[in-house]
Amino acid sequence: MNTVEFSLSEFCRQTRQAIPLLQSMDLRFTEFGDHRLRVDMPLAPNINDKQTGFGGSIAALATAAGWAIVSLMLKSRPHRYDVMVTESHMRYLAPATCNFYAIANVSDSAMATFNQVLDEQRQGRITLQVMVEQDGKQVAVYTGTYKVIQRVSQ
Amino acid sequence: MNTVEFSLSEFCRQTRQAIPLLQSMDLRFTEFGDHRLRVDMPLAPNINDKQTGFGGSIAALATAAGWAIVSLMLKSRPHRYDVMVTESHMRYLAPATCNFYAIANVSDSAMATFNQVLDEQRQGRITLQVMVEQDGKQVAVYTGTYKVIQRVSQ
Repeated sequence: MNTVEFSLSEFCRQTRQAIPLLQSMDLRFTEFGDHRLRVDMPLAPNINDKQTGFGGSIAALATAAGWAIVSLMLKSRPHRYDVMVTESHMRYLAPATCNFYAIANVSDSAMATFNQVLDEQRQGRITLQVMVEQDGKQVAVYTGTYKVIQRVSQ
Repeated sequence: MNTVEFSLSEFCRQTRQAIPLLQSMDLRFTEFGDHRLRVDMPLAPNINDKQTGFGGSIAALATAAGWAIVSLMLKSRPHRYDVMVTESHMRYLAPATCNFYAIANVSDSAMATFNQVLDEQRQGRITLQVMVEQDGKQVAVYTGTYKVIQRVSQ
């Protein structure tokens, strides 16, 4: 197990403890690297009346994935931050009929710009996209804006 | 207990059974009438790392409230329908620091127009707003579009 894997597993444990609904959803942060985060979720605890993925679970998955990738990418900075979603848009493209997952991305250039804003102002907003998929097929597309504020105490 | 209250209680039971995440959230459909639905949720199972309402729970609450008011208003029609969220937008205005609730509204005129579409085409889309509040103060504003399709078999 390398350092990144260990950190992700510890981040997953801490996050599921801090946000109990993620445990109910059985959400797992499964891969992180190259500015990309994968978050997996089984269908069973997230099913709806039509035996497909509940839209609210898909929205919560995408919201958490966006929050998590920003939180993980901020770990390389010397300060600690609070990350809060401020706005989101979701388009549902197809029903989820089996286990599904979210892929969150932040480009190198977007993160470089955002790091500069945080260096200068200690807070800022970042907008990113999350794809929700099952077996490589799109289920939903999410765009979320997150406000980031440097914590006063370490 | 009048008929509407009984129906809402039965709808709440059936919905929580069909969508298990609503049980984890401890979501309850508490008032329905005059084209308005109230849905309550305690903070504890929906808390985040900052001890406020998890954005994903708030999104799931609003998504469920929108789905539920459309489903409830369709009960007066002679056919049965499937209701699916297709698009949503959420703006988070303030952190939820105690138990919170959603208020979903569909205006008389919007429902009259939508009923006409369903009469003619057996399916259609309806867009509505849900306010998320705590103690009368706004926490989030949600706009959701739902696709409604008449079921072939009764």
